[in-house]
Amino acid sequence: MSVLEQLKAGLNGLQIEDNPQIVKQKSRDFFWYSPVLKKQLDEVTGDLVVTPKSEAEVIQVLKTCYELDVPVTTRGAGTGNYGQAMPLAGGVILNLAEMNRVKEIRQGSVVVEPGAIISKIDEECRAHSGQELRLHPSTYRTATIGGFIAGGSGGVGSINWGGLRDLGNVIRLRVLTMEAEPQVLELTGEDLQKVMHAYGTNGVITEVEMPLTAAYDWVDVLVGFDAFMDGVEFADALGNQDGLLLKEIAPIAAPVPHEYFLRHQKFIRKDQSVVVCMVAPFAMDAFATFVSRNRTASILYRSDTVSEEVRKGLPPAYELAWNHTTLRGLRVDPSITYLQVLYPYPDQVEKVRTMVNLLGEEVPAHLEYVRFDGKITCFGLPIVRYTSEERLNEIIRLHEDNGCPIFNPHRYTLEEGGMKQTDEVQLAFKKLADPKGLLNPGKMIAWEDPSYDYSSNKLFLFPGLQAG
Amino acid sequence: MSVLEQLKAGLNGLQIEDNPQIVKQKSRDFFWYSPVLKKQLDEVTGDLVVTPKSEAEVIQVLKTCYELDVPVTTRGAGTGNYGQAMPLAGGVILNLAEMNRVKEIRQGSVVVEPGAIISKIDEECRAHSGQELRLHPSTYRTATIGGFIAGGSGGVGSINWGGLRDLGNVIRLRVLTMEAEPQVLELTGEDLQKVMHAYGTNGVITEVEMPLTAAYDWVDVLVGFDAFMDGVEFADALGNQDGLLLKEIAPIAAPVPHEYFLRHQKFIRKDQSVVVCMVAPFAMDAFATFVSRNRTASILYRSDTVSEEVRKGLPPAYELAWNHTTLRGLRVDPSITYLQVLYPYPDQVEKVRTMVNLLGEEVPAHLEYVRFDGKITCFGLPIVRYTSEERLNEIIRLHEDNGCPIFNPHRYTLEEGGMKQTDEVQLAFKKLADPKGLLNPGKMIAWEDPSYDYSSNKLFLFPGLQAG
Repeated sequence: MSVLEQLKAGLNGLQIEDNPQIVKQKSRDFFWYSPVLKKQLDEVTGDLVVTPKSEAEVIQVLKTCYELDVPVTTRGAGTGNYGQAMPLAGGVILNLAEMNRVKEIRQGSVVVEPGAIISKIDEECRAHSGQELRLHPSTYRTATIGGFIAGGSGGVGSINWGGLRDLGNVIRLRVLTMEAEPQVLELTGEDLQKVMHAYGTNGVITEVEMPLTAAYDWVDVLVGFDAFMDGVEFADALGNQDGLLLKEIAPIAAPVPHEYFLRHQKFIRKDQSVVVCMVAPFAMDAFATFVSRNRTASILYRSDTVSEEVRKGLPPAYELAWNHTTLRGLRVDPSITYLQVLYPYPDQVEKVRTMVNLLGEEVPAHLEYVRFDGKITCFGLPIVRYTSEERLNEIIRLHEDNGCPIFNPHRYTLEEGGMKQTDEVQLAFKKLADPKGLLNPGKMIAWEDPSYDYSSNKLFLFPGLQAG
Repeated sequence: MSVLEQLKAGLNGLQIEDNPQIVKQKSRDFFWYSPVLKKQLDEVTGDLVVTPKSEAEVIQVLKTCYELDVPVTTRGAGTGNYGQAMPLAGGVILNLAEMNRVKEIRQGSVVVEPGAIISKIDEECRAHSGQELRLHPSTYRTATIGGFIAGGSGGVGSINWGGLRDLGNVIRLRVLTMEAEPQVLELTGEDLQKVMHAYGTNGVITEVEMPLTAAYDWVDVLVGFDAFMDGVEFADALGNQDGLLLKEIAPIAAPVPHEYFLRHQKFIRKDQSVVVCMVAPFAMDAFATFVSRNRTASILYRSDTVSEEVRKGLPPAYELAWNHTTLRGLRVDPSITYLQVLYPYPDQVEKVRTMVNLLGEEVPAHLEYVRFDGKITCFGLPIVRYTSEERLNEIIRLHEDNGCPIFNPHRYTLEEGGMKQTDEVQLAFKKLADPKGLLNPGKMIAWEDPSYDYSSNKLFLFPGLQAG
């Protein structure tokens, strides 16, 4: 009996898919945002998709795969764009999309299964008690909560709550280990770090407890500026307004808003830069007051004063921001790509100005204001008019030389896309929780090649991938 | 007919009190926190207390008093401690305590009458939809919302939302002018500044719309430190934790906690400094994790792990903080007083250290962490072991010389207790809204003496008060 046949036998009773077309489709994420990853990962595919409906079924999958030495790559909706959930060594795609129940809603917290779609969780929490999650990615309506925790870092709401990494933004994770007899672990406090943002390399999340905050009918607002830096200064001051409740503040340089936000195009001149905002409805008077104090700012659009019909024809503001800005750009001009930058406090505005002056039209700016270690500062997700990998690396180096760290979205490993060093906590936990190294192989360099030199500036190539 | 008789005739049908004992009692606030104000204001009393039950009744009071040139001093519960609501020129005490209805609760906002007790508003909002006000003073269970807006500045919750002065922390005020025919004004946005923190000198608030936030069963925690500055550094880092939801962070130096917090005394060693915290219940795991990372910190008390019986025997944490710290001190040692200090960002910790080293046992430190212009910093309400007015002024000067502005709680005028300059917006509005200068006379120097020299460092003495 072949390994595949043994595998199918072991997974008897579970929902399985082995149609190669569908398996390949379920093996992909938004890696194609990056021309670099597109080249590397385009052929990646698993062998089999398993869609468990309960923790017991996940345990069955893990036991079977452990016994047969079959890799397991866990996946939510596949909305990541680092190839996070792509099975570099083939094997089983563990699709948690049908473990999607909202199990318990309390005042301030919610317990859910990992495959629950984030907007669906919010719908239930709103109806239950006027609550919603603190943070969500721009893929709110498609991404799962488990995928967000394992592969994301923050997003809409980070202006109030910082990132997922911050203490308190995840309360509890229930995690299975990849062993002959999988253990069930309940992780809280310090232990959460072991599995958060680890791409599923060291455990499988089967239950999530998240904090909630008050839900509002957020008002989408576009504020226009003739000069992008006026918009940045506006956004920076706005973020520091302690009494003004917003959920999103994103300055985006012309011509991106007019050219890429097709359904909003009628509100935006081609040479206009925009700050995309989500404002609490009861804060609109105060917000309008704040705008009126700034002579460079004008409100181009607000969702609370247009007709229901107009509003329904437009995407929500969060689908203009974060990675959706790039996505909208790619639809208009498939040759572009993007970067991820941190402009460190307190020099964020000056650093943005420096990079804008240095790179101009080649790298139109897109900022996301966030709380970071207690301060208001901004990340950048600038559009890059891509010409070559060499030039892309040069643009990265120019940022780093000017004190703006890059989180490289053109790499599929945890380390190269992140802090460029081994996460000792996660490595130690992987040794215990995944002794055979079967969970999402090739994503944690520290596991694959403990002697890897991060300063080499070379691309880490997973041997499995080279062979494939 | 005497003026008093004419007044009573004009107020016919309204609830009136002229028993001198009760009138004097209703003419006082917590001015006696200050030995300076105690000396100046002890004899102050109005002539008559009127307690209207509706806006129409307030209009009747204002019309009558305008016609007869009788001063009107508006008052909530009299929990201020600057003599805010004390009638320096006698006349009518306008007691709004019975205009206390909660009129409408929405998702994110509440409409109330000005005399509503703050904790009562929260009770109704919690029962209605799990919401509560953003900010409250330590006199939560006695103070009115109108008094807080007219005479307060911030308090519990300011660590998340800044102060009342910040855009968005008050949505709308309905205000009556003091004219022959009082106008009814609805103020929002920029216009709110005209009457906020004006001690009722330029209008009478008859309705208030405030933002709400999510309500939680806040956990009271006392964290102990052997060295006060370790507590300050802990509090400073805690305030900068973006994902950790707290409502209150107050470092208080030994021996204040043990000596003055009598019912908590059993939890606190005499030489222990304390950080008083209110933590969201679902954040307690993360909070305990944060404490465990700090070797100088230990949790002395948390309200979620003691018995209901023990907890009921203790005052809530907010009644250990803000002006209640001083109040508890005054009960043990009536000779003390206090100051109000701002330690400006980013040097707040070093400035606290400087002042602690300089003043030692004479001025035991009490800090309140807040958001201020987008940054986490702290106010101080240090206890002062009072010896003389001269020494008090010297202590004030020492703070100012070290870059720590004082908001002097030993002055009854708006300007001397605040920014030491004319508020042009409020002055201009008073000229329109109170042309005869009958509202709370003697509190706005800019009105009483336009040529007053704030740099003189002399005490402003209201002529009416000198005569009295």
